[in-house]
Amino acid sequence: MKLYTAAQAPNPRRVRIFMAEKGLSIPTVEINVLEEENLSEEFRAVNPRGLVPVLELDDGTTIDESVAICQYLEDLHPEPNLMGRDPLGKAIICSWQRHVEFDGYQAVAAVFRNSFPFFKSRAVPGLPAEFPAIPELVDRGRRQYGHFLEALNTRLGDSNYIAGPDFSITDITGLVAIDFGRRVEMDIPGGHTHTRRWYERVAGRPSAGA
Amino acid sequence: MKLYTAAQAPNPRRVRIFMAEKGLSIPTVEINVLEEENLSEEFRAVNPRGLVPVLELDDGTTIDESVAICQYLEDLHPEPNLMGRDPLGKAIICSWQRHVEFDGYQAVAAVFRNSFPFFKSRAVPGLPAEFPAIPELVDRGRRQYGHFLEALNTRLGDSNYIAGPDFSITDITGLVAIDFGRRVEMDIPGGHTHTRRWYERVAGRPSAGA
Repeated sequence: MKLYTAAQAPNPRRVRIFMAEKGLSIPTVEINVLEEENLSEEFRAVNPRGLVPVLELDDGTTIDESVAICQYLEDLHPEPNLMGRDPLGKAIICSWQRHVEFDGYQAVAAVFRNSFPFFKSRAVPGLPAEFPAIPELVDRGRRQYGHFLEALNTRLGDSNYIAGPDFSITDITGLVAIDFGRRVEMDIPGGHTHTRRWYERVAGRPSAGA
Repeated sequence: MKLYTAAQAPNPRRVRIFMAEKGLSIPTVEINVLEEENLSEEFRAVNPRGLVPVLELDDGTTIDESVAICQYLEDLHPEPNLMGRDPLGKAIICSWQRHVEFDGYQAVAAVFRNSFPFFKSRAVPGLPAEFPAIPELVDRGRRQYGHFLEALNTRLGDSNYIAGPDFSITDITGLVAIDFGRRVEMDIPGGHTHTRRWYERVAGRPSAGA
Protein backbone atom coordinates (compact mmCIF):
# COMPACT_ATOMS: atom_id res chain seq x y z
CA MET A 1 0.00 0.00 0.00
CA LYS A 2 1.28 3.52 -0.69
CA LEU A 3 -0.13 7.02 -0.37
CA TYR A 4 0.40 9.72 -2.98
CA THR A 5 0.47 12.95 -1.03
CA ALA A 6 1.55 16.60 -1.28
CA ALA A 7 3.04 18.57 1.57
CA GLN A 8 1.32 21.81 0.57
CA ALA A 9 -2.21 20.55 -0.08
CA PRO A 10 -4.94 20.29 2.56
CA ASN A 11 -6.72 17.09 1.44
CA PRO A 12 -3.65 14.84 1.73
CA ARG A 13 -3.03 16.33 5.17
CA ARG A 14 -6.44 15.08 6.30
CA VAL A 15 -5.38 11.54 5.41
CA ARG A 16 -1.91 11.90 6.94
CA ILE A 17 -3.38 13.09 10.26
CA PHE A 18 -5.93 10.27 10.15
CA MET A 19 -3.12 7.74 9.63
CA ALA A 20 -1.03 9.26 12.43
CA GLU A 21 -3.99 9.00 14.82
CA LYS A 22 -4.27 5.32 13.90
CA GLY A 23 -0.53 4.83 14.35
CA LEU A 24 -0.26 3.69 10.72
CA SER A 25 2.89 4.07 8.77
CA ILE A 26 2.26 3.73 5.03
CA PRO A 27 4.97 4.53 2.46
CA THR A 28 4.28 7.84 0.74
CA VAL A 29 5.09 9.27 -2.67
CA GLU A 30 5.45 13.04 -2.56
CA ILE A 31 3.86 14.90 -5.49
CA ASN A 32 5.02 18.49 -5.87
CA VAL A 33 1.82 20.39 -6.65
CA LEU A 34 3.64 23.74 -6.81
CA GLU A 35 5.57 22.36 -9.76
CA GLU A 36 2.32 20.87 -11.12
CA GLU A 37 3.68 17.34 -10.85
CA ASN A 38 0.07 16.31 -10.16
CA LEU A 39 -0.78 17.32 -13.75
CA SER A 40 2.04 15.27 -15.28
CA GLU A 41 1.36 12.33 -17.55
CA GLU A 42 3.07 10.07 -15.04
CA PHE A 43 0.78 11.03 -12.18
CA ARG A 44 -2.31 11.05 -14.39
CA ALA A 45 -1.63 7.35 -14.95
CA VAL A 46 -2.28 6.98 -11.20
CA ASN A 47 -5.17 9.46 -11.03
CA PRO A 48 -6.54 10.87 -14.32
CA ARG A 49 -8.11 13.71 -12.31
CA GLY A 50 -4.64 14.92 -11.29
CA LEU A 51 -5.56 15.19 -7.62
CA VAL A 52 -4.00 13.99 -4.40
CA PRO A 53 -4.34 12.08 -2.13
CA VAL A 54 -4.52 8.66 -3.74
CA LEU A 55 -4.11 5.40 -1.86
CA GLU A 56 -2.70 2.66 -4.08
CA LEU A 57 -3.13 -0.92 -2.90
CA ASP A 58 -0.58 -3.63 -3.59
CA ASP A 59 -2.62 -4.98 -6.51
CA GLY A 60 -2.68 -1.53 -8.13
CA THR A 61 -6.27 -0.66 -7.13
CA THR A 62 -6.54 3.03 -6.27
CA ILE A 63 -8.81 4.95 -3.91
CA ASP A 64 -8.74 8.56 -5.07
CA GLU A 65 -10.73 10.49 -2.50
CA SER A 66 -9.77 11.59 1.05
CA VAL A 67 -12.83 10.51 3.01
CA ALA A 68 -13.04 7.20 1.11
CA ILE A 69 -9.39 6.52 2.00
CA CYS A 70 -10.11 7.30 5.65
CA GLN A 71 -13.16 5.03 5.66
CA TYR A 72 -11.06 2.21 4.19
CA LEU A 73 -8.36 2.64 6.83
CA GLU A 74 -11.00 2.85 9.58
CA ASP A 75 -12.48 -0.46 8.46
CA LEU A 76 -9.06 -2.15 8.37
CA HIS A 77 -7.88 -0.59 11.65
CA PRO A 78 -10.91 0.20 13.80
CA GLU A 79 -8.91 1.40 16.82
CA PRO A 80 -8.57 4.12 17.85
CA ASN A 81 -12.04 4.80 16.52
CA LEU A 82 -12.38 7.98 14.45
CA MET A 83 -15.67 7.50 12.57
CA GLY A 84 -18.13 6.28 15.20
CA ARG A 85 -18.97 3.03 16.96
CA ASP A 86 -22.71 2.56 16.59
CA PRO A 87 -25.22 3.59 13.88
CA LEU A 88 -26.20 6.87 15.56
CA GLY A 89 -22.64 7.80 16.53
CA LYS A 90 -21.50 7.14 12.97
CA ALA A 91 -24.35 9.19 11.51
CA ILE A 92 -23.67 12.18 13.78
CA ILE A 93 -19.97 12.16 12.88
CA CYS A 94 -20.81 11.81 9.16
CA SER A 95 -23.29 14.68 9.38
CA TRP A 96 -20.93 17.10 11.16
CA GLN A 97 -18.06 16.11 8.92
CA ARG A 98 -20.12 17.05 5.87
CA HIS A 99 -21.22 20.34 7.44
CA VAL A 100 -17.58 21.21 8.09
CA GLU A 101 -16.67 20.22 4.52
CA PHE A 102 -19.49 22.04 2.75
CA ASP A 103 -19.78 25.15 4.95
CA GLY A 104 -16.17 25.60 6.06
CA TYR A 105 -13.69 23.73 3.94
CA GLN A 106 -15.33 24.43 0.57
CA ALA A 107 -15.76 28.12 1.49
CA VAL A 108 -12.03 28.45 2.14
CA ALA A 109 -11.24 26.48 -1.02
CA ALA A 110 -13.38 28.91 -3.05
CA VAL A 111 -11.43 31.88 -1.65
CA PHE A 112 -8.15 30.12 -2.32
CA ARG A 113 -8.90 28.87 -5.83
CA ASN A 114 -10.42 32.15 -7.03
CA SER A 115 -7.84 34.53 -5.61
CA PHE A 116 -4.40 32.94 -6.05
CA PRO A 117 -2.75 33.78 -9.39
CA PHE A 118 -1.41 30.22 -9.44
CA PHE A 119 -4.98 28.98 -10.07
CA LYS A 120 -6.17 31.81 -12.31
CA SER A 121 -7.15 29.45 -15.10
CA ARG A 122 -7.66 26.34 -12.91
CA ALA A 123 -10.26 27.57 -10.47
CA VAL A 124 -12.07 24.22 -10.63
CA PRO A 125 -9.86 21.28 -9.69
CA GLY A 126 -9.88 17.86 -11.30
CA LEU A 127 -11.22 18.79 -14.75
CA PRO A 128 -9.46 18.62 -18.11
CA ALA A 129 -10.24 22.23 -19.03
CA GLU A 130 -9.44 25.76 -18.01
CA PHE A 131 -11.85 27.44 -15.61
CA PRO A 132 -11.15 31.12 -14.97
CA ALA A 133 -11.36 32.45 -11.44
CA ILE A 134 -14.58 34.28 -10.49
CA PRO A 135 -13.56 37.15 -8.21
CA GLU A 136 -17.04 37.42 -6.61
CA LEU A 137 -16.47 33.97 -5.12
CA VAL A 138 -13.73 35.36 -2.91
CA ASP A 139 -16.14 37.65 -1.06
CA ARG A 140 -18.83 35.00 -0.99
CA GLY A 141 -16.40 32.44 0.38
CA ARG A 142 -15.19 34.81 3.08
CA ARG A 143 -18.74 35.57 4.20
CA GLN A 144 -19.69 31.90 4.13
CA TYR A 145 -16.64 30.99 6.17
CA GLY A 146 -17.51 33.70 8.70
CA HIS A 147 -20.90 32.07 9.24
CA PHE A 148 -19.24 28.68 9.53
CA LEU A 149 -16.89 29.98 12.24
CA GLU A 150 -19.83 31.43 14.18
CA ALA A 151 -21.67 28.11 14.05
CA LEU A 152 -18.51 26.23 15.00
CA ASN A 153 -17.91 28.38 18.07
CA THR A 154 -21.51 27.89 19.19
CA ARG A 155 -21.22 24.13 18.71
CA LEU A 156 -17.94 23.93 20.62
CA GLY A 157 -19.55 25.77 23.52
CA ASP A 158 -21.82 22.72 23.90
CA SER A 159 -19.50 19.92 22.86
CA ASN A 160 -15.95 18.89 23.66
CA TYR A 161 -15.22 18.00 20.04
CA ILE A 162 -17.10 18.96 16.87
CA ALA A 163 -19.14 15.78 16.52
CA GLY A 164 -19.51 14.95 20.22
CA PRO A 165 -17.53 14.04 23.34
CA ASP A 166 -14.74 12.22 21.49
CA PHE A 167 -12.12 13.27 18.95
CA SER A 168 -13.13 12.14 15.44
CA ILE A 169 -12.43 12.56 11.73
CA THR A 170 -14.59 15.69 11.91
CA ASP A 171 -12.01 17.40 14.13
CA ILE A 172 -9.32 16.53 11.59
CA THR A 173 -11.36 18.13 8.80
CA GLY A 174 -12.04 21.13 11.04
CA LEU A 175 -8.36 21.56 11.94
CA VAL A 176 -7.27 21.35 8.31
CA ALA A 177 -10.02 23.79 7.25
CA ILE A 178 -8.93 26.31 9.88
CA ASP A 179 -5.26 26.05 8.97
CA PHE A 180 -6.28 26.36 5.30
CA GLY A 181 -8.27 29.53 6.18
CA ARG A 182 -5.18 31.06 7.78
CA ARG A 183 -3.42 30.83 4.43
CA VAL A 184 -5.95 33.31 3.03
CA GLU A 185 -5.91 35.50 6.15
CA MET A 186 -9.04 34.16 7.77
CA ASP A 187 -8.22 33.19 11.33
CA ILE A 188 -10.39 32.24 14.31
CA PRO A 189 -11.83 35.55 15.61
CA GLY A 190 -10.48 36.66 18.99
CA GLY A 191 -13.84 36.34 20.74
CA HIS A 192 -14.34 32.72 19.68
CA THR A 193 -13.07 31.26 22.92
CA HIS A 194 -14.67 27.84 22.44
CA THR A 195 -13.10 27.34 19.04
CA ARG A 196 -9.76 28.65 20.26
CA ARG A 197 -9.74 26.20 23.18
CA TRP A 198 -10.69 23.33 20.87
CA TYR A 199 -8.07 24.39 18.30
CA GLU A 200 -5.28 24.39 20.87
CA ARG A 201 -6.23 20.88 21.97
CA VAL A 202 -6.52 19.49 18.44
CA ALA A 203 -3.52 21.29 16.96
CA GLY A 204 -1.51 20.17 20.00
CA ARG A 205 -1.96 16.46 19.24
CA PRO A 206 1.16 14.83 17.79
CA SER A 207 -0.85 13.86 14.68
CA ALA A 208 -1.30 17.54 13.69
CA GLY A 209 2.27 17.67 12.44
CA ALA A 210 1.68 14.84 9.97
CA MET B 1 -38.84 7.84 13.59
CA LYS B 2 -40.02 10.39 11.03
CA LEU B 3 -38.56 12.02 7.95
CA TYR B 4 -39.01 15.69 7.12
CA THR B 5 -39.05 15.86 3.36
CA ALA B 6 -40.03 18.10 0.44
CA ALA B 7 -41.51 16.83 -2.81
CA GLN B 8 -39.70 19.43 -4.93
CA ALA B 9 -36.18 19.20 -3.47
CA PRO B 10 -33.49 16.78 -4.67
CA ASN B 11 -31.77 15.92 -1.38
CA PRO B 12 -34.89 14.51 0.32
CA ARG B 13 -35.51 12.46 -2.83
CA ARG B 14 -32.13 10.77 -2.39
CA VAL B 15 -33.26 9.58 1.05
CA ARG B 16 -36.74 8.58 -0.13
CA ILE B 17 -35.29 6.43 -2.94
CA PHE B 18 -32.79 4.90 -0.50
CA MET B 19 -35.65 4.02 1.87
CA ALA B 20 -37.73 2.57 -0.97
CA GLU B 21 -34.81 0.36 -2.04
CA LYS B 22 -34.59 -0.90 1.54
CA GLY B 23 -38.35 -1.47 1.67
CA LEU B 24 -38.60 0.93 4.61
CA SER B 25 -41.73 2.85 5.34
CA ILE B 26 -41.05 5.76 7.69
CA PRO B 27 -43.72 8.39 8.40
CA THR B 28 -42.96 11.63 6.59
CA VAL B 29 -43.69 15.29 7.28
CA GLU B 30 -43.99 17.28 4.07
CA ILE B 31 -42.33 20.71 4.15
CA ASN B 32 -43.41 23.04 1.36
CA VAL B 33 -40.18 24.67 0.26
CA LEU B 34 -41.89 26.68 -2.49
CA GLU B 35 -43.84 28.44 0.28
CA GLU B 36 -40.61 28.68 2.30
CA GLU B 37 -42.03 26.53 5.09
CA ASN B 38 -38.45 25.30 5.62
CA LEU B 39 -37.54 28.83 6.75
CA SER B 40 -40.39 29.04 9.28
CA GLU B 41 -39.75 29.31 12.99
CA GLU B 42 -41.54 25.99 13.47
CA PHE B 43 -39.27 24.09 11.12
CA ARG B 44 -36.16 25.87 12.34
CA ALA B 45 -36.90 24.31 15.74
CA VAL B 46 -36.29 20.97 13.98
CA ASN B 47 -33.34 22.15 11.86
CA PRO B 48 -31.92 25.63 12.52
CA ARG B 49 -30.32 25.51 9.07
CA GLY B 50 -33.75 25.40 7.44
CA LEU B 51 -32.88 22.46 5.21
CA VAL B 52 -34.50 19.13 4.40
CA PRO B 53 -34.22 16.19 4.74
CA VAL B 54 -34.11 15.64 8.50
CA LEU B 55 -34.59 12.28 10.17
CA GLU B 56 -36.06 12.65 13.67
CA LEU B 57 -35.71 9.69 16.01
CA ASP B 58 -38.31 8.83 18.63
CA ASP B 59 -36.26 10.48 21.39
CA GLY B 60 -36.11 13.72 19.40
CA THR B 61 -32.51 13.29 18.16
CA THR B 62 -32.17 14.59 14.61
CA ILE B 63 -29.87 13.65 11.73
CA ASP B 64 -29.86 16.62 9.36
CA GLU B 65 -27.86 15.49 6.35
CA SER B 66 -28.83 13.16 3.47
CA VAL B 67 -25.82 10.86 3.32
CA ALA B 68 -25.65 10.61 7.13
CA ILE B 69 -29.33 9.57 7.17
CA CYS B 70 -28.63 6.93 4.50
CA GLN B 71 -25.63 5.62 6.42
CA TYR B 72 -27.77 5.34 9.57
CA LEU B 73 -30.49 3.42 7.71
CA GLU B 74 -27.87 1.19 6.06
CA ASP B 75 -26.46 0.26 9.46
CA LEU B 76 -29.91 -0.52 10.88
CA HIS B 77 -31.10 -2.37 7.76
CA PRO B 78 -28.06 -3.79 5.95
CA GLU B 79 -30.08 -5.60 3.26
CA PRO B 80 -30.38 -4.95 0.42
CA ASN B 81 -26.87 -3.55 0.62
CA LEU B 82 -26.44 -0.06 -0.88
CA MET B 83 -23.16 1.17 0.59
CA GLY B 84 -20.77 -1.77 0.20
CA ARG B 85 -19.99 -5.03 1.95
CA ASP B 86 -16.26 -5.04 2.58
CA PRO B 87 -13.69 -2.30 3.23
CA LEU B 88 -12.67 -1.89 -0.42
CA GLY B 89 -16.22 -2.11 -1.77
CA LYS B 90 -17.34 0.53 0.75
CA ALA B 91 -14.43 2.80 -0.14
CA ILE B 92 -15.06 2.57 -3.89
CA ILE B 93 -18.75 3.40 -3.42
CA CYS B 94 -17.88 6.27 -1.08
CA SER B 95 -15.36 7.62 -3.55
CA TRP B 96 -17.67 7.52 -6.58
CA GLN B 97 -20.54 8.90 -4.53
CA ARG B 98 -18.42 11.91 -3.62
CA HIS B 99 -17.27 12.41 -7.22
CA VAL B 100 -20.90 12.43 -8.34
CA GLU B 101 -21.80 14.86 -5.56
CA PHE B 102 -18.92 17.29 -6.06
CA ASP B 103 -18.60 17.18 -9.86
CA GLY B 104 -22.20 16.57 -10.89
CA TYR B 105 -24.71 17.35 -8.19
CA GLN B 106 -23.01 20.52 -6.91
CA ALA B 107 -22.50 21.76 -10.48
CA VAL B 108 -26.24 21.50 -11.16
CA ALA B 109 -27.04 23.05 -7.78
CA ALA B 110 -24.81 26.03 -8.66
CA VAL B 111 -26.72 26.55 -11.93
CA PHE B 112 -30.04 26.22 -10.12
CA ARG B 113 -29.27 28.44 -7.15
CA ASN B 114 -27.65 31.20 -9.21
CA SER B 115 -30.23 31.39 -12.00
CA PHE B 116 -33.68 30.96 -10.47
CA PRO B 117 -35.25 34.26 -9.36
CA PHE B 118 -36.70 32.36 -6.37
CA PHE B 119 -33.16 32.12 -4.93
CA LYS B 120 -31.88 35.52 -6.05
CA SER B 121 -30.91 36.52 -2.52
CA ARG B 122 -30.50 32.98 -1.15
CA ALA B 123 -27.89 31.57 -3.50
CA VAL B 124 -26.15 29.82 -0.59
CA PRO B 125 -28.43 27.45 1.32
CA GLY B 126 -28.47 26.93 5.07
CA LEU B 127 -27.06 30.28 6.21
CA PRO B 128 -28.80 33.04 8.19
CA ALA B 129 -27.90 35.78 5.68
CA GLU B 130 -28.65 36.87 2.17
CA PHE B 131 -26.24 35.74 -0.53
CA PRO B 132 -26.85 37.25 -3.96
CA ALA B 133 -26.66 35.05 -7.03
CA ILE B 134 -23.40 35.19 -9.02
CA PRO B 135 -24.40 34.89 -12.70
CA GLU B 136 -20.93 33.62 -13.76
CA LEU B 137 -21.59 30.50 -11.70
CA VAL B 138 -24.33 29.48 -14.11
CA ASP B 139 -21.89 29.15 -17.01
CA ARG B 140 -19.24 27.58 -14.82
CA GLY B 141 -21.75 25.06 -13.47
CA ARG B 142 -22.95 24.14 -16.96
CA ARG B 143 -19.39 23.57 -18.16
CA GLN B 144 -18.52 21.58 -15.04
CA TYR B 145 -21.61 19.45 -15.44
CA GLY B 146 -20.72 18.81 -19.09
CA HIS B 147 -17.36 17.38 -18.00
CA PHE B 148 -19.09 15.30 -15.35
CA LEU B 149 -21.44 13.82 -17.97
CA GLU B 150 -18.49 12.93 -20.19
CA ALA B 151 -16.72 11.17 -17.34
CA LEU B 152 -19.94 9.40 -16.34
CA ASN B 153 -20.52 8.05 -19.83
CA THR B 154 -16.95 6.77 -19.99
CA ARG B 155 -17.32 5.10 -16.61
CA LEU B 156 -20.62 3.48 -17.53
CA GLY B 157 -19.00 2.04 -20.64
CA ASP B 158 -16.81 -0.01 -18.28
CA SER B 159 -19.17 -0.65 -15.41
CA ASN B 160 -22.76 -1.79 -15.02
CA TYR B 161 -23.45 0.75 -12.29
CA ILE B 162 -21.54 3.86 -11.32
CA ALA B 163 -19.56 2.36 -8.44
CA GLY B 164 -19.25 -1.18 -9.80
CA PRO B 165 -21.28 -4.24 -10.78
CA ASP B 166 -24.09 -3.63 -8.27
CA PHE B 167 -26.65 -0.89 -7.78
CA SER B 168 -25.62 1.39 -4.88
CA ILE B 169 -26.27 4.73 -3.20
CA THR B 170 -24.04 6.27 -5.89
CA ASP B 171 -26.61 5.42 -8.56
CA ILE B 172 -29.29 7.10 -6.47
CA THR B 173 -27.19 10.27 -6.23
CA GLY B 174 -26.48 10.04 -9.97
CA LEU B 175 -30.15 9.61 -10.87
CA VAL B 176 -31.20 12.54 -8.70
CA ALA B 177 -28.39 14.71 -10.12
CA ILE B 178 -29.45 13.93 -13.69
CA ASP B 179 -33.13 14.63 -13.01
CA PHE B 180 -32.06 17.83 -11.23
CA GLY B 181 -30.02 18.79 -14.32
CA ARG B 182 -33.08 18.37 -16.51
CA ARG B 183 -34.82 21.09 -14.50
CA VAL B 184 -32.22 23.55 -15.78
CA GLU B 185 -32.26 22.17 -19.33
CA MET B 186 -29.17 20.02 -19.06
CA ASP B 187 -30.04 16.52 -20.24
CA ILE B 188 -27.92 13.47 -21.06
CA PRO B 189 -26.42 14.19 -24.51
CA GLY B 190 -27.79 12.01 -27.32
CA GLY B 191 -24.46 10.30 -27.99
CA HIS B 192 -24.01 9.19 -24.37
CA THR B 193 -25.35 5.72 -24.97
CA HIS B 194 -23.81 4.18 -21.83
CA THR B 195 -25.36 6.78 -19.56
CA ARG B 196 -28.69 6.55 -21.35
CA ARG B 197 -28.80 2.78 -20.93
CA TRP B 198 -27.88 3.10 -17.24
CA TYR B 199 -30.44 5.88 -16.75
CA GLU B 200 -33.26 3.79 -18.19
CA ARG B 201 -32.41 0.92 -15.87
CA VAL B 202 -32.09 3.09 -12.76
CA ALA B 203 -35.05 5.38 -13.47
CA GLY B 204 -37.12 2.27 -14.24
CA ARG B 205 -36.73 0.83 -10.74
CA PRO B 206 -39.87 1.22 -8.60
CA SER B 207 -37.85 3.25 -6.05
CA ALA B 208 -37.31 6.07 -8.55
CA GLY B 209 -40.88 7.27 -8.02
CA ALA B 210 -40.32 7.76 -4.29
